Amino acid sequence: MADPFVPPCLAQLPHVSGLAMAACEAGIKYADRDDLMLMTFCCGTTAAGLLTRSSLPAAPVLVTRKHLEGDCPRALVVNSGNANAFTGSEGLEHCRMIGQATARAVGCEPEQVLMASTGVIGEPLPAKRIARSIPELARDVQEADWLRVARSIMTTDTFPKGATATAAIDGKAVTLCGIAKGSGMIAPDMATMLAFCFTDASIPAGTLKAMLAESAGRTFNAITVDGDTSTSDMLLLFATGTAGNAPPRFADDPRFVEFRTALDAVLKDLALQIVRDGEGASKLIEIRVRGAETDSAARQIAEAVANSPLVKTAIAGGDANWGRVIMAVGKSGQKVVPENLVLKIGGETVARGGSRSEDYDEGRVARHLEGAEVLIEIDIGIGNGQFTMWTCDLTHGYISINADYRS
Amino acid sequence: MADPFVPPCLAQLPHVSGLAMAACEAGIKYADRDDLMLMTFCCGTTAAGLLTRSSLPAAPVLVTRKHLEGDCPRALVVNSGNANAFTGSEGLEHCRMIGQATARAVGCEPEQVLMASTGVIGEPLPAKRIARSIPELARDVQEADWLRVARSIMTTDTFPKGATATAAIDGKAVTLCGIAKGSGMIAPDMATMLAFCFTDASIPAGTLKAMLAESAGRTFNAITVDGDTSTSDMLLLFATGTAGNAPPRFADDPRFVEFRTALDAVLKDLALQIVRDGEGASKLIEIRVRGAETDSAARQIAEAVANSPLVKTAIAGGDANWGRVIMAVGKSGQKVVPENLVLKIGGETVARGGSRSEDYDEGRVARHLEGAEVLIEIDIGIGNGQFTMWTCDLTHGYISINADYRS
Repeated sequence: MADPFVPPCLAQLPHVSGLAMAACEAGIKYADRDDLMLMTFCCGTTAAGLLTRSSLPAAPVLVTRKHLEGDCPRALVVNSGNANAFTGSEGLEHCRMIGQATARAVGCEPEQVLMASTGVIGEPLPAKRIARSIPELARDVQEADWLRVARSIMTTDTFPKGATATAAIDGKAVTLCGIAKGSGMIAPDMATMLAFCFTDASIPAGTLKAMLAESAGRTFNAITVDGDTSTSDMLLLFATGTAGNAPPRFADDPRFVEFRTALDAVLKDLALQIVRDGEGASKLIEIRVRGAETDSAARQIAEAVANSPLVKTAIAGGDANWGRVIMAVGKSGQKVVPENLVLKIGGETVARGGSRSEDYDEGRVARHLEGAEVLIEIDIGIGNGQFTMWTCDLTHGYISINADYRS
Repeated sequence: MADPFVPPCLAQLPHVSGLAMAACEAGIKYADRDDLMLMTFCCGTTAAGLLTRSSLPAAPVLVTRKHLEGDCPRALVVNSGNANAFTGSEGLEHCRMIGQATARAVGCEPEQVLMASTGVIGEPLPAKRIARSIPELARDVQEADWLRVARSIMTTDTFPKGATATAAIDGKAVTLCGIAKGSGMIAPDMATMLAFCFTDASIPAGTLKAMLAESAGRTFNAITVDGDTSTSDMLLLFATGTAGNAPPRFADDPRFVEFRTALDAVLKDLALQIVRDGEGASKLIEIRVRGAETDSAARQIAEAVANSPLVKTAIAGGDANWGRVIMAVGKSGQKVVPENLVLKIGGETVARGGSRSEDYDEGRVARHLEGAEVLIEIDIGIGNGQFTMWTCDLTHGYISINADYRS
């Protein structure tokens, strides 16, 4: 499988102490590629997760949500090619089978195994094939086989995704690494995407969860490809604790400022890799809204623009049809005063004072739209609310990929 | 301009007494086609309207909203090629200019003129050219030039849209006729579309509005192409009163049952013509939800399915990927019990009891998806709420049309 673009960082992702990993070809759906991975964690590891809000979550989501309530996760099993979603009691039975095989191979309790699946919905998971592959995976785990593991969880992704950062806690260096997958069905609230992050810092589960939720609000929950939310997806953060730092006393502990900045950086890096690889995407679009009544109003305005097919197709075509941004702002349902609104594209003011800007230069905007990154700035001009969101353009590629995804 | 498909009814739309119409080429944007139309109404006509809920409505929307509060509309002016939206005080000035020219030509007050514009957003309307064309239009009005008038309001539409029905009120025959435009930016709450309906029945404005709102809830507000809502659109219903029936005493007056059925039929016919002509559409998709907690919950579930790009691309590709319908139901935010849900496509049960149906035959579903009309039935199985919605598939055509609409 050719990778048109492997982020340079992925091959250089460092080892996170307390962590081991392996991937293999379990023959779930795809031919000649890895589709199953196992990660193991040392004793004392903590975990936090954000899982899909779908009211029809996949079986592994139900299992992982439950197991996150327990202590000390020891393994993570992820397959691609089949989401084990809307598979009823058989789906849950398949999860139990995989959990038991993993617990036996790793030497832990089934409740210490977290799991995720991604791929087609509604088809029975070939769970026996997965369970049979696990003992060998457990024997093969090694320290930092990030590229292979990141590739094994891909579905329609065109490149594997990874990111890393370091931080100091009380002078001790800690490492953060993450991998992710997902290029369609991406929308806020954990739409089709899987992301797994790891650190050797020592952080209790409750505090870890608070840090993850806050950081995801600015990163993973601020991206959208098509507004669709999947049955399956999750963002997990594991902390092995091997760095030996003194744990934080609370989520805002000032000793962890640098760590939280590093967490933001890794999550944002992964989130933007997902958007850049949005199905058929040719451009990354950043939508910065400020001056709204509240942050929540700013978010809804940014979402309306980011999810508008008419905005996204215009940008795909390099068409400076800024009226569509106005349309999307208008449909957001949020308070807008036309006279106060200022719209800029690529730094060029296109509208202000309730109509087109007098010195608007369509040529400059058109040249900006030719680039791979598009910046849309919307100042609502009535308050202090702000939110930044990222999306991609909507191209023929999206249709081609999705009109015959299963074929 | 070639019409690949003119609904047979349009050429045969009957005369509505009290109404006259004309269209012409005002040179607003397109070459060699009509882009301006005028309709005139006899004294005593009443009108009701549903207008876009965009918080950035176009200038003619503001004007028409205000003029609907007054009595006795005498004229309707509509142009295509330019939406006169986000055009500030100049846009309102242009509306005044057109309103005055029309009032002079028709012999009424400017407050008796309603108007609508559709086309590109944010560019100044060539209002002088429009105002200059109006006296000739006023001279040229004739009884039933429906096809020409329906063509003049088209933008990216591939065919003009019209519908008609008759009803008896106290034994008196009344006629209903309507025309519409709009093929992108279509979503509930009056997204980019214009529809104008006319009857010779005598109905006071307040009752007319109640009837229109109720009927639109089941028809125009139950269609979506891309979930986008425009700055400009409106549904207007005019009643000339020339049929001489005794007016209804209230909206539910049983003497008007047949009339309201006819109104439903005309609005639904126009709404479905708009969806069939959705930008790039190749299939009409009907989504019937029942068994939800409430009608409103059923509507939100239907909307989630109808607006899902992944569902719409799968149907475009004739791919029986029913898991995407499950995904969309799950993301709706409404209460769903997996075990109670029954999903049928083309009458074939694909899922029930929390997983794929045991006798599911993918071949039969795939054959259904080859047709021009697709039926998705979702029984949530927990209540009595129901709602039916219509949309179209998402194809390469949508991208092609919208990536360079202005070019």
